[in-house]
Amino acid sequence: MSKYQHIKELAYKANMELPKLNLVIFTFGNVSAADRELGVFAIKPSGVPYEDLSPEKMVIVDFDANIIEGKLRPSSDTKTHAVLYKECEEIGGICHTHSTYATSWAQAQRCIPIYGTTHADHKTVDIPCVPPMHDDRIKGDYEYETGYQIINYLKEKGLSYKEVEMILVGNHAPFTWGKNAEKAVYNSAVLESIAQMALLTEQINPNVTRLKDSLIKKHFERKHGPDSYYGQ
Amino acid sequence: MSKYQHIKELAYKANMELPKLNLVIFTFGNVSAADRELGVFAIKPSGVPYEDLSPEKMVIVDFDANIIEGKLRPSSDTKTHAVLYKECEEIGGICHTHSTYATSWAQAQRCIPIYGTTHADHKTVDIPCVPPMHDDRIKGDYEYETGYQIINYLKEKGLSYKEVEMILVGNHAPFTWGKNAEKAVYNSAVLESIAQMALLTEQINPNVTRLKDSLIKKHFERKHGPDSYYGQ
Amino acid sequence: MSKYQHIKELAYKANMELPKLNLVIFTFGNVSAADRELGVFAIKPSGVPYEDLSPEKMVIVDFDANIIEGKLRPSSDTKTHAVLYKECEEIGGICHTHSTYATSWAQAQRCIPIYGTTHADHKTVDIPCVPPMHDDRIKGDYEYETGYQIINYLKEKGLSYKEVEMILVGNHAPFTWGKNAEKAVYNSAVLESIAQMALLTEQINPNVTRLKDSLIKKHFERKHGPDSYYGQ
Amino acid sequence: MSKYQHIKELAYKANMELPKLNLVIFTFGNVSAADRELGVFAIKPSGVPYEDLSPEKMVIVDFDANIIEGKLRPSSDTKTHAVLYKECEEIGGICHTHSTYATSWAQAQRCIPIYGTTHADHKTVDIPCVPPMHDDRIKGDYEYETGYQIINYLKEKGLSYKEVEMILVGNHAPFTWGKNAEKAVYNSAVLESIAQMALLTEQINPNVTRLKDSLIKKHFERKHGPDSYYGQ
Repeated sequence: MSKYQHIKELAYKANMELPKLNLVIFTFGNVSAADRELGVFAIKPSGVPYEDLSPEKMVIVDFDANIIEGKLRPSSDTKTHAVLYKECEEIGGICHTHSTYATSWAQAQRCIPIYGTTHADHKTVDIPCVPPMHDDRIKGDYEYETGYQIINYLKEKGLSYKEVEMILVGNHAPFTWGKNAEKAVYNSAVLESIAQMALLTEQINPNVTRLKDSLIKKHFERKHGPDSYYGQ
Repeated sequence: MSKYQHIKELAYKANMELPKLNLVIFTFGNVSAADRELGVFAIKPSGVPYEDLSPEKMVIVDFDANIIEGKLRPSSDTKTHAVLYKECEEIGGICHTHSTYATSWAQAQRCIPIYGTTHADHKTVDIPCVPPMHDDRIKGDYEYETGYQIINYLKEKGLSYKEVEMILVGNHAPFTWGKNAEKAVYNSAVLESIAQMALLTEQINPNVTRLKDSLIKKHFERKHGPDSYYGQ
Repeated sequence: MSKYQHIKELAYKANMELPKLNLVIFTFGNVSAADRELGVFAIKPSGVPYEDLSPEKMVIVDFDANIIEGKLRPSSDTKTHAVLYKECEEIGGICHTHSTYATSWAQAQRCIPIYGTTHADHKTVDIPCVPPMHDDRIKGDYEYETGYQIINYLKEKGLSYKEVEMILVGNHAPFTWGKNAEKAVYNSAVLESIAQMALLTEQINPNVTRLKDSLIKKHFERKHGPDSYYGQ
Repeated sequence: MSKYQHIKELAYKANMELPKLNLVIFTFGNVSAADRELGVFAIKPSGVPYEDLSPEKMVIVDFDANIIEGKLRPSSDTKTHAVLYKECEEIGGICHTHSTYATSWAQAQRCIPIYGTTHADHKTVDIPCVPPMHDDRIKGDYEYETGYQIINYLKEKGLSYKEVEMILVGNHAPFTWGKNAEKAVYNSAVLESIAQMALLTEQINPNVTRLKDSLIKKHFERKHGPDSYYGQ
């Protein structure tokens, strides 16, 4: 048995959640699961429908995007995953989808304003939308550059990847991450819900304002602060 | 067997309806069921996915929010439930969700106008939206204050909790209640449907006006008046 | 066995289609099936959830709304069905729902403009929206008056019930009919689809105009004209 | 066994995907599968619900729309399929639906602007919307003319059918095609997703602009260019 079996199974299970959570059609998304000790991650093979996946079909890749094990070609977004794992040392899973509402905000090139406690339960900031890449970078190593597009934007804005965990790549679609692959998928589903409600909120009240700071702080801390009292 | 077994089962069954009715994803909602004789209610444990629930996992809490029985931590919204049970003596069940359309109205901080007979079949008033809490209260006992935010708003507006049964907490999400847990969940689903149709109605006709009083009265009374002729 | 068994089964089957077609939640709709020879119709009992229905629970009513057979109280909309059967002699089934998009157009008090061939495949006219009832009629025999509200509107506008088959009652919700109960339910589902696409069409292009007459005529006739070539 | 058995099975399977992908209700769509060697295609029979279909019920038609084999009447859109097969020599499958969002863009008579990489992954151009037909052609051989309406529009705009593969017929609904029936259905589902996201994008940002050329080129080429690296 492969010594990467555990992350192949984590990646397989997480990928299979995408169609169940209505985050993808056909092959429009990919999840990876990392093993930090071994310095590799397991990722969905490119263009293979979810119903044909199995743990064995996951591809093992290192953080420089070299293929380590696997017969199939990995996701075309593999280099973006590799950059994020390399630069964000506490990430254990990454998820990329073209989910309807989050992708529409990305296409509209707008950050998603924090309008309510559903958002504040997870994040204290607007969901960032990274501006589209410069043309010379598009012509270069595109998926690799997409990773640095995200990393550089976070640095520029003084945002921590541990705090954000969800980002929109302008004109493209969302990437989310977390301590493991399951959490990365969870963040993609939460983002889709936040994205839909933010649009509806603006349609119901075009003059709506952002959530006030005191509520942002309270909701985030009850779930994630040192005295959090959410969960078991 | 616990002497609270009957309300544990009612609370369990009512919580399990939330994902079936598309009112929640993950753990975004909680229902409780009260026993007025025993002065307690059974409520969902915090952060536990619906598919992992069982009647045994429900937590028994009294109306001052003291835990009476149960190994798990109760929902983080438990104190809000406790206040509502304490102040509204005929309530037997409470439901809280972050359902898409009702939550979007709450985020937009607008009451839902009564636009049609679907609304009037259930309520004679606009669905109230309670303004966000003052900062000093947010820093205090937040979930307890959320309960009094609701109670005080109803008093201020001269509304009876028996008449309203559905409310939006501004910037947050809806709470609904009823004679039992099943009815509280029913009210959450009706509210979600009313909330969606109210937005669509305004999109179809931005100059739409509220339902006229004669129709409000007629529809409510045929379902709930002394000469009601709806149901068996 | 009841001599009304055949229409009880038709009404039962047609009612059970409503939740499958996502046209209702809980008990928000009712279908009836008529036997013209016997001068009666079978209709859903009031307030009974679809999952608890059986053919035996259908109530037999005549065209003056007298209960002929059945232990349960019939739908609160029974008198509206009775009036429509009495006045429209070739109708064999009637369906009433609070489906999301059609109800929103009814609440907005707008007729649904004919914007495309999906609409023209079924109807050559805008889907009419009957204005809300006068107050003195609301205080009278409300459901009976709802039937005549529909009938009088059709007469006033010179529309044939055979041509229309779908109508919005202003502030309330749609009624549809057809040669039998199955066709009435089909018309409710088609109406819901037309209603959703008409709103989306206006959102995509606020200056959109109605379908031109030549296309209305062509599409309707290929399905319903003397030389129709749709179906078997 | 019929010598057309293989395309009957392909057409049957492709038609059965339409309700699963939520692209149709009732009988609102049809798919065909061609055999170029034999110069024929298999198409859905007209007005038959998907649940009653079988490979045997598919109708075999040649590229001049003559029925070659089959007991049922073929889809009323058969002549449109025939024209497209005749004029576009590398097409192996065609799909026509009245899917909600694509049909709404067709009714609004607008081309779908390319707003993101989901679109660019599949097409480098806006999804064309062919203007409604002239009245004299509507009165003629309507479905045959619909085929040439599409073909002439592509020629007029200098677009290749191999590049486009998805088109909106103004006031009507979409047609899509591909190397086989499965790919034609895939294109219909992708189009529906693109159509929904394009509307949402404009609602989120009314001043949104088209995707820049460098990104269009990059995304299309990574999936379809000579050095494509998507899929296996």
